[in-house]
Amino acid sequence: MPLRTVEQYKNSLRDGRAVYFRGEKVSDVNTHPVIGLAVEHATIDYKMAEDPRFRELAVMREGAEEYSRYYHLPKGGTDLLKRSELIATSTRAAATLVILIKEIGTDALFALHVVGGHMAAKGKPEYLERVQKYHRYCRDNDLAMAVAQTDVKGDRSLGPSAQEHPDYYLRIVEERKDGIVVRGAKIHTSVSTNSNEIVVLPTRAMKPEDKAYAVAFAIPANAPGLKMIAATHGSAQKDPIEHPISARHKMMETLTVFDDVFVPKERIFLQGEVEFAGLMALTFVRFHRFTAVSYKLPLMEALSGAAYAVAEANGILAASHVRDKLTHLAAYHTMVRGLIERAAETCTVEHGIAVPNTLLTNVAKYHFAHNYHQAVQIVQDLTGALLVTAPAAEDLTSEATRAYVLKYLGGRKGFDAERRLRLINMISDLTASDYGAYQEVLAVHAEGGFEAEKLQAYREYDFKSVAAYARTLAGI
Amino acid sequence: MPLRTVEQYKNSLRDGRAVYFRGEKVSDVNTHPVIGLAVEHATIDYKMAEDPRFRELAVMREGAEEYSRYYHLPKGGTDLLKRSELIATSTRAAATLVILIKEIGTDALFALHVVGGHMAAKGKPEYLERVQKYHRYCRDNDLAMAVAQTDVKGDRSLGPSAQEHPDYYLRIVEERKDGIVVRGAKIHTSVSTNSNEIVVLPTRAMKPEDKAYAVAFAIPANAPGLKMIAATHGSAQKDPIEHPISARHKMMETLTVFDDVFVPKERIFLQGEVEFAGLMALTFVRFHRFTAVSYKLPLMEALSGAAYAVAEANGILAASHVRDKLTHLAAYHTMVRGLIERAAETCTVEHGIAVPNTLLTNVAKYHFAHNYHQAVQIVQDLTGALLVTAPAAEDLTSEATRAYVLKYLGGRKGFDAERRLRLINMISDLTASDYGAYQEVLAVHAEGGFEAEKLQAYREYDFKSVAAYARTLAGI
Amino acid sequence: MPLRTVEQYKNSLRDGRAVYFRGEKVSDVNTHPVIGLAVEHATIDYKMAEDPRFRELAVMREGAEEYSRYYHLPKGGTDLLKRSELIATSTRAAATLVILIKEIGTDALFALHVVGGHMAAKGKPEYLERVQKYHRYCRDNDLAMAVAQTDVKGDRSLGPSAQEHPDYYLRIVEERKDGIVVRGAKIHTSVSTNSNEIVVLPTRAMKPEDKAYAVAFAIPANAPGLKMIAATHGSAQKDPIEHPISARHKMMETLTVFDDVFVPKERIFLQGEVEFAGLMALTFVRFHRFTAVSYKLPLMEALSGAAYAVAEANGILAASHVRDKLTHLAAYHTMVRGLIERAAETCTVEHGIAVPNTLLTNVAKYHFAHNYHQAVQIVQDLTGALLVTAPAAEDLTSEATRAYVLKYLGGRKGFDAERRLRLINMISDLTASDYGAYQEVLAVHAEGGFEAEKLQAYREYDFKSVAAYARTLAGI
Amino acid sequence: MPLRTVEQYKNSLRDGRAVYFRGEKVSDVNTHPVIGLAVEHATIDYKMAEDPRFRELAVMREGAEEYSRYYHLPKGGTDLLKRSELIATSTRAAATLVILIKEIGTDALFALHVVGGHMAAKGKPEYLERVQKYHRYCRDNDLAMAVAQTDVKGDRSLGPSAQEHPDYYLRIVEERKDGIVVRGAKIHTSVSTNSNEIVVLPTRAMKPEDKAYAVAFAIPANAPGLKMIAATHGSAQKDPIEHPISARHKMMETLTVFDDVFVPKERIFLQGEVEFAGLMALTFVRFHRFTAVSYKLPLMEALSGAAYAVAEANGILAASHVRDKLTHLAAYHTMVRGLIERAAETCTVEHGIAVPNTLLTNVAKYHFAHNYHQAVQIVQDLTGALLVTAPAAEDLTSEATRAYVLKYLGGRKGFDAERRLRLINMISDLTASDYGAYQEVLAVHAEGGFEAEKLQAYREYDFKSVAAYARTLAGI
Repeated sequence: MPLRTVEQYKNSLRDGRAVYFRGEKVSDVNTHPVIGLAVEHATIDYKMAEDPRFRELAVMREGAEEYSRYYHLPKGGTDLLKRSELIATSTRAAATLVILIKEIGTDALFALHVVGGHMAAKGKPEYLERVQKYHRYCRDNDLAMAVAQTDVKGDRSLGPSAQEHPDYYLRIVEERKDGIVVRGAKIHTSVSTNSNEIVVLPTRAMKPEDKAYAVAFAIPANAPGLKMIAATHGSAQKDPIEHPISARHKMMETLTVFDDVFVPKERIFLQGEVEFAGLMALTFVRFHRFTAVSYKLPLMEALSGAAYAVAEANGILAASHVRDKLTHLAAYHTMVRGLIERAAETCTVEHGIAVPNTLLTNVAKYHFAHNYHQAVQIVQDLTGALLVTAPAAEDLTSEATRAYVLKYLGGRKGFDAERRLRLINMISDLTASDYGAYQEVLAVHAEGGFEAEKLQAYREYDFKSVAAYARTLAGI
Repeated sequence: MPLRTVEQYKNSLRDGRAVYFRGEKVSDVNTHPVIGLAVEHATIDYKMAEDPRFRELAVMREGAEEYSRYYHLPKGGTDLLKRSELIATSTRAAATLVILIKEIGTDALFALHVVGGHMAAKGKPEYLERVQKYHRYCRDNDLAMAVAQTDVKGDRSLGPSAQEHPDYYLRIVEERKDGIVVRGAKIHTSVSTNSNEIVVLPTRAMKPEDKAYAVAFAIPANAPGLKMIAATHGSAQKDPIEHPISARHKMMETLTVFDDVFVPKERIFLQGEVEFAGLMALTFVRFHRFTAVSYKLPLMEALSGAAYAVAEANGILAASHVRDKLTHLAAYHTMVRGLIERAAETCTVEHGIAVPNTLLTNVAKYHFAHNYHQAVQIVQDLTGALLVTAPAAEDLTSEATRAYVLKYLGGRKGFDAERRLRLINMISDLTASDYGAYQEVLAVHAEGGFEAEKLQAYREYDFKSVAAYARTLAGI
Repeated sequence: MPLRTVEQYKNSLRDGRAVYFRGEKVSDVNTHPVIGLAVEHATIDYKMAEDPRFRELAVMREGAEEYSRYYHLPKGGTDLLKRSELIATSTRAAATLVILIKEIGTDALFALHVVGGHMAAKGKPEYLERVQKYHRYCRDNDLAMAVAQTDVKGDRSLGPSAQEHPDYYLRIVEERKDGIVVRGAKIHTSVSTNSNEIVVLPTRAMKPEDKAYAVAFAIPANAPGLKMIAATHGSAQKDPIEHPISARHKMMETLTVFDDVFVPKERIFLQGEVEFAGLMALTFVRFHRFTAVSYKLPLMEALSGAAYAVAEANGILAASHVRDKLTHLAAYHTMVRGLIERAAETCTVEHGIAVPNTLLTNVAKYHFAHNYHQAVQIVQDLTGALLVTAPAAEDLTSEATRAYVLKYLGGRKGFDAERRLRLINMISDLTASDYGAYQEVLAVHAEGGFEAEKLQAYREYDFKSVAAYARTLAGI
Repeated sequence: MPLRTVEQYKNSLRDGRAVYFRGEKVSDVNTHPVIGLAVEHATIDYKMAEDPRFRELAVMREGAEEYSRYYHLPKGGTDLLKRSELIATSTRAAATLVILIKEIGTDALFALHVVGGHMAAKGKPEYLERVQKYHRYCRDNDLAMAVAQTDVKGDRSLGPSAQEHPDYYLRIVEERKDGIVVRGAKIHTSVSTNSNEIVVLPTRAMKPEDKAYAVAFAIPANAPGLKMIAATHGSAQKDPIEHPISARHKMMETLTVFDDVFVPKERIFLQGEVEFAGLMALTFVRFHRFTAVSYKLPLMEALSGAAYAVAEANGILAASHVRDKLTHLAAYHTMVRGLIERAAETCTVEHGIAVPNTLLTNVAKYHFAHNYHQAVQIVQDLTGALLVTAPAAEDLTSEATRAYVLKYLGGRKGFDAERRLRLINMISDLTASDYGAYQEVLAVHAEGGFEAEKLQAYREYDFKSVAAYARTLAGI
């Protein structure tokens, strides 16, 4: 099957899925005032595949076959660099908001390949076979995919079996000949409302007593019993002049409920093998944090670019403190970019799949995330308080106010009020709106939080070897 | 005249003022869907004066006379501590959003007393007399006051007279026997839409050629020619369950245009004395930054309190990294509070008015401001991604979704889903919404930005004395 | 007995004490090339008491009696402020190195009074009586005192009784009618080589099984069985031109071994009451961290003063980044100073003794300590690499080199090479020598490390009250 | 000519050079108690070339010819990676102190090739020819080279011609047919006392009036009129048990005086072409900062290795805050390493020479430098105060003290006192001694300070392109 068109994608979402928004079932996500925006945002992916400017990057050709590059299994550093470039390019085209309908799903597929390889090596070849088949199915049908990983967790200091409530982690409630029935809920599931497939992965390592919780699988978005309760953050209607980014771009998250959902055998990728649950969770984030850093690059470009452009508009580009702050943003962006590119180049190949250097990826991700709020602060600092005190879009056209706004809100010579306000509005949308807040929270939490990143870096760093050096220096 | 009631305050705002919202003139600010919220917020001030819990703190008695403590001219450290406590208490009652309708106006009045004292000492006693009379007028009529200080500035690297456009700073365009006519615009004027009086101050030091720009005065909010164009940031309608703070509390800012406004002589506090313009600007912020730090205290309490409460709800209070982050918030709050209290105690009395220690005030303000985003990051970190992925208020009542939400979003044993969501919604409102963004931008810009604070600290610190000590140590 | 003279102090140290330096017993600490320097440094205390410039501050008069103010039991904030001023003043006179021969001992005495008060309230009045008597003895004889608190600890993750080795914490090995015999070793004991008395305190909270380790007492420095093994860090001989501070000022630390030392009953302040061990350790640091912050103030003055003076000498005072860095140092000093003064003012009186505000003290200490290295970095940055590449003292006098050095190493007009080099040498001594390193390590470790300070701040901060506020805001 | 032996190198330094130490001329640097140490340190370079473990890396073979890899002109990323590896490896072998006798000189040679290429392109081919010839001469004779760049500068706010004193920057005082005579002085010249050649470069951009100051050349270390006045920092004699690194490793710096030194024509690389002075200065640091980051890697390995080893010895490896601090060190090292490797890979080839990516190099260098003191703080924190309170080397052997030290200073089970003390002594030497301070100052100042690094990053970052992106997002 060839790559899908925008229309095909939209039609595929009219499949009877159970999506709830503000307590009500959504009849068609395409026409919903909020979720429709997310659908529209996701179509950028399909448009890029047809756009001559992006086609080379976005589409793989193997003989007569064509498929989206996202689905390409990376064989080495070059593939990973290309993938990173594709993710950055599409996010850039999507105005700093990641598209994600293929990024995250393929991260999961890559991880399933690697873990499937490990399982095959331990005498369980069936999982890898299912993964390979499922991968081809998604690729050949050019599907949009979500990944549901984070369980609701209840008391976060307790494991799955120790919870007050047996369903605080997703679990198998029935094993049948032809498949399993699962119950539970995942949170923070991104792009689920407008995906075709939902891949479900365990969120953590499991102990022997957690057997029922060691489960991974994939189901279509309209699977019976699957309910998606949409988040409403950032869903107020917005003026495109005041919110040039978020009036047009949106990503949806859901609380994804599995109310006794049946999963057929060929879609099950883990079923009770507790020893592989942690590995699966971890392998997924090894890919997904690489994806994450890649899609953060346009956001960082927008921050340093905005800071520079507005400093110019405000006439303060020559001030020493301004240069210092711009340099800080430049260094921030440069470091994260340099590290993720180096992570691609120093990948390891595991079971035939190139895995980005985990240490560098985690360090890059942590550095991005931990310094994001400070970068926002700098951009806010250079822009000025008009971020929150600017007049309305209507004030630029109203007879009563237009003349005043145009007269008084100009900047440095040659920078008129309207352009300056549009620039400031964009920066306000980027850093001082619910969209800006969304990006802050994503920086902190998406793809695992600070402590997870630090833990993985701690484990990957070669302390033994440097400690040996230290002991040599000490003569002991 | 006794203290005003809420009704008297609201009635006083029906005075024909020219307020524009989204390009349209507002007929009554009280009933406007957005500005009405700001009026309601401001009434907390008038309610507190009648509330037995706050009366002692909020009201001064001198013989039979009663007036709002804000108007009390501080004579020493104790007065400043009380004032700080009043500001913090009212902001706490107002759910972390400062009320400001008396705070900022009295900061201006105190500064005008001090500068008036200086001017009297230089042979110009009339200004101080006008200030004293105006102060009594505002106090005795229990008025709400705004301060318009920041000019629109155009090219920020140029002074008033050097701008492309003569009106980029507010200026006197006509001097009459009985007063002056002024033209220009001020931005970021807070609470102007719902104040009775607007005090206008210069925003910077002036040079001899800037004579027409060296002007300070006060006018009523309905003065002919005065136009206020309201900012729309954060003005979307909000559900009080999802936004428990900002659905109920609002502050308005305006672009405040002076389209040839007449100011009578007795309301003029500076008219061409360029040498006092900078002093006036600076003296105002010496008081106003003290006010600012005082009103930030409840915000910092809310941050550390929210972090603690949600860590408890999530069951992670015992984790070492959580303790570390909570300690960081505790130290942040403690330091800012300790410093501002010390600033009150080590005040200097100038022309009879106690001025908070300027070095300590600026250092406290800078420390607050520069570390605010990091504090937000910590709170977001401890709360979790539900900040932006939580279900809607309606999902708690809808038949279709209620059971799932209640079942799956509970926290640590004993912390049910509804309470947890309400807590998370509050934190989202505080740190991950347009209100949260507004607080971030205020931290950076309100009462002068980072560089202004650093400059004033540099000037106030006694480098001469410590350099002498260093030279002594060096034996030179 | 009146205050002692320098001679009396020095003579008192010729008491047969067992001090070892580089493996050899020291016959007279006064004449030892390294320890003699420490004695000389300590004499500043006795000189100040006679110096009219300091007498008022350093000496208390009660009727005909005179005694060193250090021994004055603080009754309130004013006493604490005076004590802080005395500590800062003497450290300033001692060129940034604390004298400590009375500071630390009186911190211990104050803590023993408070804990003695608690013990008396629990039916054990004898300890308080002993403390009071011992306090008068030290005060009336104007004694120099060391405090030995930190046990050697072995495996720091284990408590006293759980160690591989029973003597890793100091313990009672014999209880006699007239006293006890103790065995063990304390480390990091400052000024022990040149004190008259050694006060010994427990280093941590104890459990029931640690009874033998719950012990506090005081002994003279020449007690039989007491051995002090001196540290050698920073003990190379130094040229006073190249090291204007450390060539003249020195503090000694020892590994203090108690090889079955007898302690008479009236000198025992804790004997097996495990429940008071932790309180005693903690109460001591409540005073001692206040002392610490007080004696750090001259060090911070020296840092910002040095930075300013050398920036002036180098001709870079007008550069924007230089101002920024100087402001950073100014703010650092101002904050720590403001917080410690506020800690004095908001003290609590416990059993008649004023205890500095523990939360503020710990926050101030942590802020000082955690930011010290960065402050050093700034000073090094502004000074230049001559810190480590400057010519020798002899190059300023040698025929062969003098002319070149004078010609080439001048700074800004009017700042000749010799003065500039002396200034740079002082800064090198302060920040880029073993003395500088000693100050860095002290910042990190003295009076308890980072984690101890953070833990105490966490415990003292009122999380309950702010969490209640957060819940109120959330409506739960 | 083949590679030199250690003996040949040492003999070559007996050439009558004028080196002064503490005001006295040094007759033979090899036998001087301090400089001899620096010579010994430098011999590691010559030993590595003969050592089978390093030969492959250290020596280039071209046909029958062999020469030190340092002299190899880099053609691309691979060459730069190898060079970086060589620099790191030799510094690792030299116990964290860079050897530098070939590193810095070849940085200068590479820069001279690039600038010579530019000059040739502008019609001045003679300089490149001289550079090429000189490069072959140094390479074929396996010479040790120093680079003298930093002028003494006087008032650092003024340029060369504007100084009070014409010799504050090195200048040409006479132009002859066969060469030039130069006068002035350079500071911070590393390894000059034990090099064969001194390359002299301008330190900054020049203006037309600075023609006499636009000069670059090379001279032998024994050139008449050349005087080197050695720095004495860190030159006290040290016990190798207490200072296992710095008792054996030393680098010398000099004030390098050019008292009318003649330079023959073929050794002149710039003579009055003011427009190339700045380029030459800058091109040199483009290479030299890459070298710098490379030689910092072993220092960072030592820091994180020491922290890990001592945390293990102290029994605190499992503590959460310890892990956090170790992770910080790991991330610090990983980032700097990743960035510098990426800088090699993304080099640009200019006039046939591969120049490391300047943006990445400067960002890596700045990140290393700006965070160095904090890394030191962490290591000090984890090690404990024994860093400055440990007993002497002699205490481990003296009858009087040995038993106490061994008994009491053990760590976690299995970590005896002697090994623990040796480890702590090494860390003390590395972070809390004059050697540690030297490394701190080097971090701040060597290869140009913070502001220089930031300025170059600012210039290299592509602000135009990101600003265009920001404007696109804003729709302007």
